[in-house]
Amino acid sequence: MTFSIKEMAKKARIASRQVAKLTASKKVEVLNSIADNMLKQTDKILAANKEDLEAGRQADLSEAMLDRLTLSEQSIGNIANAVRQIAAQDDPVGSIRDIRRQPSGIEVGKMRIPLGVVAMIYESRPNVTIDAAALCFKAGNAVVLRGGKEALHSNLALAECIHLALKSHGVDPNAVVVVPDPDRAIMNELMTLNQDIDLIIPRGGEGLIRFVSENSRIPVIQHYKGVCHLYVDKAADEVKALSLLMNGKTQRTGVCNSLETLLVHKDIAASFLPMAAAMFAEHKVRVHACENSIAYFDGAEPATEADWDTEYLAMEIAVRVVDSYDQAIEHLEQHSSGHTEVIATQDYSRAQQFIRDVNSAVVMANASSRFSDGGELGLGAEIGISTSKLHAYGPMGAESLTTEKFIVLGDGHIRQ
Amino acid sequence: MTFSIKEMAKKARIASRQVAKLTASKKVEVLNSIADNMLKQTDKILAANKEDLEAGRQADLSEAMLDRLTLSEQSIGNIANAVRQIAAQDDPVGSIRDIRRQPSGIEVGKMRIPLGVVAMIYESRPNVTIDAAALCFKAGNAVVLRGGKEALHSNLALAECIHLALKSHGVDPNAVVVVPDPDRAIMNELMTLNQDIDLIIPRGGEGLIRFVSENSRIPVIQHYKGVCHLYVDKAADEVKALSLLMNGKTQRTGVCNSLETLLVHKDIAASFLPMAAAMFAEHKVRVHACENSIAYFDGAEPATEADWDTEYLAMEIAVRVVDSYDQAIEHLEQHSSGHTEVIATQDYSRAQQFIRDVNSAVVMANASSRFSDGGELGLGAEIGISTSKLHAYGPMGAESLTTEKFIVLGDGHIRQ
Repeated sequence: MTFSIKEMAKKARIASRQVAKLTASKKVEVLNSIADNMLKQTDKILAANKEDLEAGRQADLSEAMLDRLTLSEQSIGNIANAVRQIAAQDDPVGSIRDIRRQPSGIEVGKMRIPLGVVAMIYESRPNVTIDAAALCFKAGNAVVLRGGKEALHSNLALAECIHLALKSHGVDPNAVVVVPDPDRAIMNELMTLNQDIDLIIPRGGEGLIRFVSENSRIPVIQHYKGVCHLYVDKAADEVKALSLLMNGKTQRTGVCNSLETLLVHKDIAASFLPMAAAMFAEHKVRVHACENSIAYFDGAEPATEADWDTEYLAMEIAVRVVDSYDQAIEHLEQHSSGHTEVIATQDYSRAQQFIRDVNSAVVMANASSRFSDGGELGLGAEIGISTSKLHAYGPMGAESLTTEKFIVLGDGHIRQ
Repeated sequence: MTFSIKEMAKKARIASRQVAKLTASKKVEVLNSIADNMLKQTDKILAANKEDLEAGRQADLSEAMLDRLTLSEQSIGNIANAVRQIAAQDDPVGSIRDIRRQPSGIEVGKMRIPLGVVAMIYESRPNVTIDAAALCFKAGNAVVLRGGKEALHSNLALAECIHLALKSHGVDPNAVVVVPDPDRAIMNELMTLNQDIDLIIPRGGEGLIRFVSENSRIPVIQHYKGVCHLYVDKAADEVKALSLLMNGKTQRTGVCNSLETLLVHKDIAASFLPMAAAMFAEHKVRVHACENSIAYFDGAEPATEADWDTEYLAMEIAVRVVDSYDQAIEHLEQHSSGHTEVIATQDYSRAQQFIRDVNSAVVMANASSRFSDGGELGLGAEIGISTSKLHAYGPMGAESLTTEKFIVLGDGHIRQ
């Protein structure tokens, strides 16, 4: 198949002008129609997915990769539901805020508008195709989707559900472009098309993200590692704290919102750490402990400086006893990856202070770090998680795919 | 003088943690104290400025450059007033919005927080030193200021006003770092310090901005050219439209918010263009005209394709007659630089439509493009103008120097 990625991006730019002007209700109709099409075409999608899985097994993909690639009737239903949730959210485009009359007499406000064209570069998860298309469309953007070659058949089957919905509502199908050839050279060319693409979001391993960040001529949203912390304050409810620790560390380990470091206030260490140790033993969690906590854990290794910055993504955790709240904050200032930090405390003032003091993308009091996810935070789905503070910070939903322009209303006003 | 820019950035990072936690009223006190100090030290600042001007004359700086470099008692008063205006604005930090309970029971909202450390790279205008310091401080950030060598003495004298105010209020003076050696090598090193600097804002010529964008490892706010358009609709009030045209083109020409292109609806061309021609003749504005308008102007040159994308920054303008509103929009979609566009019309619906259809950073109905400026738009001052849509779009005030984090309140909630 020969095609030009440059031409595709240009067509997406043209389509983006139509999408930007669609009414909120038209966008809701199209999104619900995408969800309907997915349910109607479940068999077709599963057949395409089977092709990808068979090719994947022949290519000796890892089990983890095959797992991410696999769709089922249930997962298709879940993805369709996420699309309906996105459809049901407030429309982020067109809202006007803060109109104020200035001393010159002009009225100035800000109006929320789409970014234009967003490009996604991702690996093998086919759900990203739908999530990204739905979020970009909700935000009034066109999107260029370049998924991994392992998921190509699945992605094309999902794209058909999208294109049918667009066409049946009179929307230019180039509003959602699925790149039909996931060749590396295509990706490299995509990153140079700053005339027609406004933002690139890479989703995948750190290598991919660094590669895109360093080579793209288009702004990039970066999502680096999540070294998430739970700080158990001296005023913590120990049962709740243990439950946050267990959920954060053991529910799923290969995800960026799992816990990697436990900080414990010294006044509660003697009663809390034995409970933590028993839970770790039960779940076979390997422990890297500081010198003040190592005695509580059977077979723990001494934590090195490197442990405080390690994303284990496994049944493995670093543990440190801190002398004070301030020392916990200091630890976070040095080692936080800016993703998610949690305090367990029953002390109202302390919880409030932590929420203000810690400037990670997601800061929690008495809730599991595993909630740090677009769906759980109320975004319907997420197109990515930004760990840099520019433009967006944390899980990105439709609103993160928009910007604001100034609007000025005068009646022949000129500047003196 | 030997110093390490790396060390300075690290100190700014440490100071930024204190600034982020200052109360709104403390920040107001410090800002007003900066303004007071400027008035008290006017003689000292003017003496330092004189040194720069003398060195500048010896170095054969252009008159335009000397003009930008020159301070006066009045301009110092104006800059101090801008600081008081910034002080008087709503504090952008700490506001919480959209707290909603999620199906899991957790409460999720967003809180506005500072970016951290901002670096400014600018040329010879000493007012940028104060504007940037005041806006960054208001937003709870530390700032590293690297001005041009032509303004070094002026900048250091202004920095003293800032540092006195910080110290007298117990704030770490590294919250505002003025780089004492504006060597190019220092700038190059500055752009690599992504551990301690969150954002770089270059202000100056296109060459500087491109250089920083292409070489920085820190996110950069880009401010490219302003090709601002006035579209005179068929339903325009011609007297008002002429006044917008005159103010936009002739009040100041060397600025990015001056008009570069006039689009006129064909139905009003025969009556409006002779008025425009007379005004242009009076102000000696050179005209590049399309084939349908050239007959109206004495000595006009035929407009070439390149004229539609040219920022003249001079008494020079491109003129085109369009067949319809849609053709005007099409022209903007192809040639807008994303800065500022204006419609002159008495047609209510048309004005509303233009405001929605055009996605430049500043879109105006019946007001002069010259209002496209942080001060006039109510920001007190501006730290820069972003012509890319990411993070900020248009003139950037204190709020543009912040971001939002998610906050999550639970009571031991874990993910199912």
